[in-house]
Amino acid sequence: MRALVWDGRELRFDPFYPPLLFKPAIEDGGSKIVGATGSRPLPPRAIVKVQLAGICSTDLQIFKGYMGFKGVPGHEFVGTVADGPNEFAGKRVVGEINFGCGNCDACRRDLRRHCPNRLVMGILNADGAFAEYVSVPAANLHVVPENISDEEAVFAEPLAAAFEILAQIQLSPGDEVLVMGDGKLGNLCAQVLRLSGAKVTALGKHADKLALIKKTGVRTVDLKDWQPCQFDVVVEATGSASGLELALGAVRPRGTLILKSTIAGKHQVSLAPIVINEINVIGSRCGPFPDALEALAARQVSVTPLIQAIYPLNDGVAAVDHAGKPGARKILLRPT
Amino acid sequence: MRALVWDGRELRFDPFYPPLLFKPAIEDGGSKIVGATGSRPLPPRAIVKVQLAGICSTDLQIFKGYMGFKGVPGHEFVGTVADGPNEFAGKRVVGEINFGCGNCDACRRDLRRHCPNRLVMGILNADGAFAEYVSVPAANLHVVPENISDEEAVFAEPLAAAFEILAQIQLSPGDEVLVMGDGKLGNLCAQVLRLSGAKVTALGKHADKLALIKKTGVRTVDLKDWQPCQFDVVVEATGSASGLELALGAVRPRGTLILKSTIAGKHQVSLAPIVINEINVIGSRCGPFPDALEALAARQVSVTPLIQAIYPLNDGVAAVDHAGKPGARKILLRPT
Repeated sequence: MRALVWDGRELRFDPFYPPLLFKPAIEDGGSKIVGATGSRPLPPRAIVKVQLAGICSTDLQIFKGYMGFKGVPGHEFVGTVADGPNEFAGKRVVGEINFGCGNCDACRRDLRRHCPNRLVMGILNADGAFAEYVSVPAANLHVVPENISDEEAVFAEPLAAAFEILAQIQLSPGDEVLVMGDGKLGNLCAQVLRLSGAKVTALGKHADKLALIKKTGVRTVDLKDWQPCQFDVVVEATGSASGLELALGAVRPRGTLILKSTIAGKHQVSLAPIVINEINVIGSRCGPFPDALEALAARQVSVTPLIQAIYPLNDGVAAVDHAGKPGARKILLRPT
Repeated sequence: MRALVWDGRELRFDPFYPPLLFKPAIEDGGSKIVGATGSRPLPPRAIVKVQLAGICSTDLQIFKGYMGFKGVPGHEFVGTVADGPNEFAGKRVVGEINFGCGNCDACRRDLRRHCPNRLVMGILNADGAFAEYVSVPAANLHVVPENISDEEAVFAEPLAAAFEILAQIQLSPGDEVLVMGDGKLGNLCAQVLRLSGAKVTALGKHADKLALIKKTGVRTVDLKDWQPCQFDVVVEATGSASGLELALGAVRPRGTLILKSTIAGKHQVSLAPIVINEINVIGSRCGPFPDALEALAARQVSVTPLIQAIYPLNDGVAAVDHAGKPGARKILLRPT
């Protein structure tokens, strides 16, 4: 099949990538997962024909060595089930990216996102969605309601990550929230947090991206006009290490700081404000897909303005180049 | 009066320290607090004759420049009210160390520990307890039950700080908790967290201090025998920056890390585990005195074994030297 392949040094388009995912041992993660599950029956999987896939900042980090991943990248997708359990046959689906072993404490507590033996689509030991087909455990799939377009559904994964914040903390109407970062994740977080009735301010340094956020009804502030002040909740979604000091200073005593950016490397940071002000710092990663799909179906969030361009899969290398350019918005790949 | 005085460079014993605390403008923090409270009546204060005062790691940090404090240090004390509101006349008391302005949002929400205009006894713009007398807002005082000795009551402040953890998180019997640090605060935290029914392990590197913790019924592990494993809750109370990486690695996914050490300077640390494992990091500082006094009165915690020596106030400089020696336990000062 056609696929983009990262070999640890170079990203290339491969017109004849072996469809390894159809071979059971590999399909289920190779020896690692087989070892972990022992002789239990393997969980049912589905083969999804990818309609659209999104290039995410994490993908760009992978091309800098993050996670040491090799294989087909890509973890944001919408597609049609080509093969799999009957209930999904021919259905349009999106999919959660963490493949749990199904056999550990975390999986038993329905926390497969934190399974210590997990594979992660396009990130850790599992081929991803920058390809004609992707293999996904059926338990990870969610059927897409008809009134959601492919161009909207492909945002389900990052939108779910934004909804994770609401699953982690209780926001009340009138709470003052600062979202730091005007990129794609910052935009989605600002829109989602606003649904709680909180007063959301987005802080960024790109006039065009701030304008995009402002259109959704969120108050925006350009970093160059920033006056230090304090918020009940601050969300760090800048994707850079430098924002952390400002973020800690912008949380009121006993307030909450949500960390959304996974940044490789070490921070040089004073953590004393966390103790002195008794701040609650919460790491936040993947989130609930049903909430994301509901919000898209109900038109509560607006995602398509974030799309910058759609490339055919064959031009995937150029698409990734484009996604890495400063100021780029969401770049999508269309394999079909 | 007699007092220990830190002038920013040197700690000395002053037999004739001006009892500034009896002059109203200074007593209430000088122009800063007077300005903050405007023309409102000043909150009633008490003059406490100090019976015992404890030297704490924060004091040692102050002598390295922390907070830029100048004046009489000391914030752990037990004493007798020499002058003040009738309800406290002649009573034996301990006192909370944060003096709120009484007029801001934080104070109105009963959070004077987080008042932005606060003075902090012996730490920030207010003379402390290494003296014959200390001036304290009456609202900060707590009467000490008769069955608690002075040597026990002087631990009320650090013990309250340990109870703060239970005020911040819900521990369940059977929860696995790791307390990092076998010093005074680590010891108190381990004892207090055990009251919740949690399974507490203390990690340290001083055989004698670990033995002291073990006597309270807490499981102990020497750092040299440490095998990486994961806990529901980890409390960082080592007082050093180096423990943070180990601490983050010892928290299970979605677990909690309590930061107890206020460490000056910057950490060099990777925060990615916080995001990937969705860890909840909570800063924890001063705590509820009533809980501390109740636990002491009910003999639920054991504090006097932590005492290494009691010095007369006149030998206070030598006492501070002793407190700074590696392996030192709690050093107390007796002004009378």
